[in-house]
Amino acid sequence: MSDKKTEIIRILKEFEGKSISGEELGEALGISRTMVWKYIKSLQNDGYPITSSQKVGYKLDHVPDILYPENIMSGLENRLIGRSVIYYDEVDSTNNAAKRIARESDDGTVVISRIQKSGRGRLGRPWISPDGGIWLSIIIKPKISLAHASRLTILAGITVTKIMRDMGVDAVIKWPNDVLINKKKVCGILTELNAEIEQIEYVIVGIGINANNEIGDFTEELRKNSTTLKQETGKPVNRVELVQDILSEFEQQYIRFNTQPFSSILDEWIELSDTLGKHVTIMTPTRMISGKAIAITENGSLIVRKADGISEEVIGGRCMYEIS
Amino acid sequence: MSDKKTEIIRILKEFEGKSISGEELGEALGISRTMVWKYIKSLQNDGYPITSSQKVGYKLDHVPDILYPENIMSGLENRLIGRSVIYYDEVDSTNNAAKRIARESDDGTVVISRIQKSGRGRLGRPWISPDGGIWLSIIIKPKISLAHASRLTILAGITVTKIMRDMGVDAVIKWPNDVLINKKKVCGILTELNAEIEQIEYVIVGIGINANNEIGDFTEELRKNSTTLKQETGKPVNRVELVQDILSEFEQQYIRFNTQPFSSILDEWIELSDTLGKHVTIMTPTRMISGKAIAITENGSLIVRKADGISEEVIGGRCMYEIS
Repeated sequence: MSDKKTEIIRILKEFEGKSISGEELGEALGISRTMVWKYIKSLQNDGYPITSSQKVGYKLDHVPDILYPENIMSGLENRLIGRSVIYYDEVDSTNNAAKRIARESDDGTVVISRIQKSGRGRLGRPWISPDGGIWLSIIIKPKISLAHASRLTILAGITVTKIMRDMGVDAVIKWPNDVLINKKKVCGILTELNAEIEQIEYVIVGIGINANNEIGDFTEELRKNSTTLKQETGKPVNRVELVQDILSEFEQQYIRFNTQPFSSILDEWIELSDTLGKHVTIMTPTRMISGKAIAITENGSLIVRKADGISEEVIGGRCMYEIS
Repeated sequence: MSDKKTEIIRILKEFEGKSISGEELGEALGISRTMVWKYIKSLQNDGYPITSSQKVGYKLDHVPDILYPENIMSGLENRLIGRSVIYYDEVDSTNNAAKRIARESDDGTVVISRIQKSGRGRLGRPWISPDGGIWLSIIIKPKISLAHASRLTILAGITVTKIMRDMGVDAVIKWPNDVLINKKKVCGILTELNAEIEQIEYVIVGIGINANNEIGDFTEELRKNSTTLKQETGKPVNRVELVQDILSEFEQQYIRFNTQPFSSILDEWIELSDTLGKHVTIMTPTRMISGKAIAITENGSLIVRKADGISEEVIGGRCMYEIS
């Protein structure tokens, strides 16, 4: 069912606002004109502005900014990431939903929700996830050791930051893996995994982007330190294209990850991050460390040189920059 | 409910086959004689051989070898491991059951099942789990980094091997973490975990012991390489005591893990293992390595020196000893 819908949307998009007859559509899909009409009805119900006339056929007036699987998958040329897309109108959190289906899902499956009712950030913190944002999780089943799982988070941070810079905004990665614009958070990444000691069963890379959601939906606390792409660019962003760009770039990064030494990826992270060289205070669940961020390790840990001259390796935590 | 049953079993065990009146039991538990009688009925239904006489009261004829929570918990003096015990008559696998409840469970919760219908070994292999064996999983929520999670498997291997040696059998650890007697497998350990990159949510340490189960229940393939404690000692083992000993020793090991350098634990592993010095062939999901096992790392990886003189670190896999 949804494969045919994806195909119809793909073809209508290719026609770029021109009409195509029901007969032609039917031939392209190998189905009857009546079936075409049924799929069109279903797509119209989903919110696609498809007009039909007996004379000239069907026309997609414009591509609506809804994150339905067929809208994302039509035009996405990935071989792994996003070959399956699962959409929810509302869900507790896309990471939770992904966990529930991960074992039975294909490698590269993407879970998207319009709204997260209990969106989660790193270290158990809540993540406000109203309509207008991009809340997605990617299920990956990499053949890597547990000790290297953190590298997938690094890939995701690079991916989002690069795509945002391509959009013309000055995005930077703040260790461990937030994406900031003008010192305000625009994206968070929550990577979770399930594993035996000897092999990873699956990794869930959750990506939350404040895109077209309203600043007003943030709590007062968040408002000081968060922003949205709409706010930063002055206009709503095309979320469908953004998701496609992210999935496409993530696939490229993942291919690089599987074929090239990790040091090249780390170099790109360093280039895109503004953390190294800064004075930081990091709060972990068990301690607090202050000092100068002097390096990042192959597994994404930060090396902090404290005032006493001793350097410490920190795996993660809440990182604050000292005002300089 | 089950707290009172645990208390009754504890008291009856302390009376060691002598009788105690319903009135005394009721006073000890702060409940009426009628309630005592109801609990006794319930325990009798569970299979406890409790005799009652109007004159002298209640008596536990002998402690039955059933792995019910109250039977395991009464007399177990742990502060963490086994403070909650959940029992199934049949379950898919205790690791699966533990995963389903882990988030809401207390640190140290133990899941036991009489039978596992889809028992799992390492790397997705099946584990035959009929009545008579010990199939349990321990839920732990350690404040350690993902990179150190493998150390908990090492603790479990040491625990089981020590307890078996105390029973008088010559148990050894075969890397990565099987326990063998006379070169045949008597225990397998399957450690799984759920984590964010920055913090572990929970670890499930699954321990499967061929105790009183029948050799005849093994497949022909398994029969060559597996044994049971009953087979090795010539008589059925007391599974309740064995589980108590394991939970108690595991708690001691876990305390040591949290307070002492890991090198001391590793030294004990080396002492209990027969792998170092042997020529091994290891099959991992992605490759095969042959050579001499020359060392174990702080995270339980094996260092193998190959014929070409190059040493490799292997995280896990199926390990075979070369016949020498």
